[in-house]
Amino acid sequence: MKVVTTVQEMEALSDTFRRDGLRIGFVPTMGYLHEGHISLVRESAAQCDVTVVSIFVNPVQFGPNEDFSRYPRDIERDCQLCRDAGVAVAFIPPVAEIYAADRSILIEERLLSTGLCGASRPGHFAGVCTVVAKLFNIVNPHVAVFGQKDAQQLAVIRRMVRDLNFRVVVVGAPIVREPDGLAMSSRNVYLSAAERQQALGLSKALALAAEHITRDIRSTVALTATLRKFLQDGYPGILEEYITFVDPATLAPLTDLPPGPVLLALAAKVGRTRLIDNALLDVPTLQP
Amino acid sequence: MKVVTTVQEMEALSDTFRRDGLRIGFVPTMGYLHEGHISLVRESAAQCDVTVVSIFVNPVQFGPNEDFSRYPRDIERDCQLCRDAGVAVAFIPPVAEIYAADRSILIEERLLSTGLCGASRPGHFAGVCTVVAKLFNIVNPHVAVFGQKDAQQLAVIRRMVRDLNFRVVVVGAPIVREPDGLAMSSRNVYLSAAERQQALGLSKALALAAEHITRDIRSTVALTATLRKFLQDGYPGILEEYITFVDPATLAPLTDLPPGPVLLALAAKVGRTRLIDNALLDVPTLQP
Repeated sequence: MKVVTTVQEMEALSDTFRRDGLRIGFVPTMGYLHEGHISLVRESAAQCDVTVVSIFVNPVQFGPNEDFSRYPRDIERDCQLCRDAGVAVAFIPPVAEIYAADRSILIEERLLSTGLCGASRPGHFAGVCTVVAKLFNIVNPHVAVFGQKDAQQLAVIRRMVRDLNFRVVVVGAPIVREPDGLAMSSRNVYLSAAERQQALGLSKALALAAEHITRDIRSTVALTATLRKFLQDGYPGILEEYITFVDPATLAPLTDLPPGPVLLALAAKVGRTRLIDNALLDVPTLQP
Repeated sequence: MKVVTTVQEMEALSDTFRRDGLRIGFVPTMGYLHEGHISLVRESAAQCDVTVVSIFVNPVQFGPNEDFSRYPRDIERDCQLCRDAGVAVAFIPPVAEIYAADRSILIEERLLSTGLCGASRPGHFAGVCTVVAKLFNIVNPHVAVFGQKDAQQLAVIRRMVRDLNFRVVVVGAPIVREPDGLAMSSRNVYLSAAERQQALGLSKALALAAEHITRDIRSTVALTATLRKFLQDGYPGILEEYITFVDPATLAPLTDLPPGPVLLALAAKVGRTRLIDNALLDVPTLQP
């Protein structure tokens, strides 16, 4: 595996891959890799000849009171995991290689970014779009794989690719969970043992929603109230930020669930740690 | 010459050019071509194997009270001019081919776009950046040629290419003028004979500034006052919008002209028509 730290070297490598007729898969990450990230690498490897993983904790997508400086980092372990997973290139640029001191360009998404996490994280998705566009131009991949865990990010990136005509196939890969159901996240390392127990409420709430939907409940007001009560009663350590049912492509909130795929997205604080989780629910047609 | 109206066909052609090892030059235009545009094509032809010209009156870069609907159009004449100039592909997409009805991505530039024309045209440069990024992704050129006539646009595009890591060499080509000095512009067709006479004041003011600079005048307050008086006295049909001396790369306004290149940019209304002009002045070191 090649470890690359400069834009110029990454561009040259990508040119070489293209010249050799190789299909380039790309997995952008902020590092501190876990099994979720590795599943994205596997998805890329299944579709492409070479996989590039970027590891870059992007300062522009963190708010001033967020965890940029304490975000967990372990480059050596990340490199070992990438090597073991058959990654061809780990692109690990320093911040100054990516952002000029007088940078002044930002890519804004103005419909899908406003709700869900965007409501409490102003500027977050502009930071995500901007860095992903830069990485797309540097890595020049055929395919890019993103986790369904960050469902809003995935929808926003799909929108950016469409609206800016990026020639990248965006693939969403399923959430990977711990055996007890907790969605894998680099931020799980922040949780104390007690907090980790409380955090299980999120995945259990998703399962509860799926169950209620099979019982023909379609009102999102009713469903949300049920989930909220479930969390308050069983998981008082969870401070809910949102429980929202939306259209998976447009992220438009739903009042009654239509048949077909629906995204149930949750965000909450457990202690100081902000966690998100979601499920793509396949809503069946109502029985007559 | 191929005339292409769909994104898909343009992408396929561009892929073919690349596969054949051809260097692609790109000249984005809003059509109603004149000798200025053709000079950009010649510059592209000098540096590349094939030249793509896009003709697209971009609605997103026009303000609500601007001239989008009456902007002059003559596609047949444009195609003939492109053919005569040896253009390989004219890319002429309809608006719906470029913008989805629910488009929600905009590229914002926040430093260079605020002054000069940006001050009176909010959203203009976001519209320019967005469409140029899209066209870069669709046409995938090695080189893109822009006119120095739109000096602020050229600086903003250079900034976008740098800040988003587009792999396109941006070339600025000199202003082309009518024999009497008027900078060529598709909007000159709006001018009545009397207005056209008045419009000559702009290029004459640029020449006057150059002359004063050779006389060791360096205060932009003094220079601006001189130019303003010159226009008011000799060209009362010119309604000045700005007369500004700036750094050509950062567009930061200057109070005293440093030695080296300085951009003098003018904007004015003549009747209903908004015109711009500029000169890159090479300021000599002061005599001791």
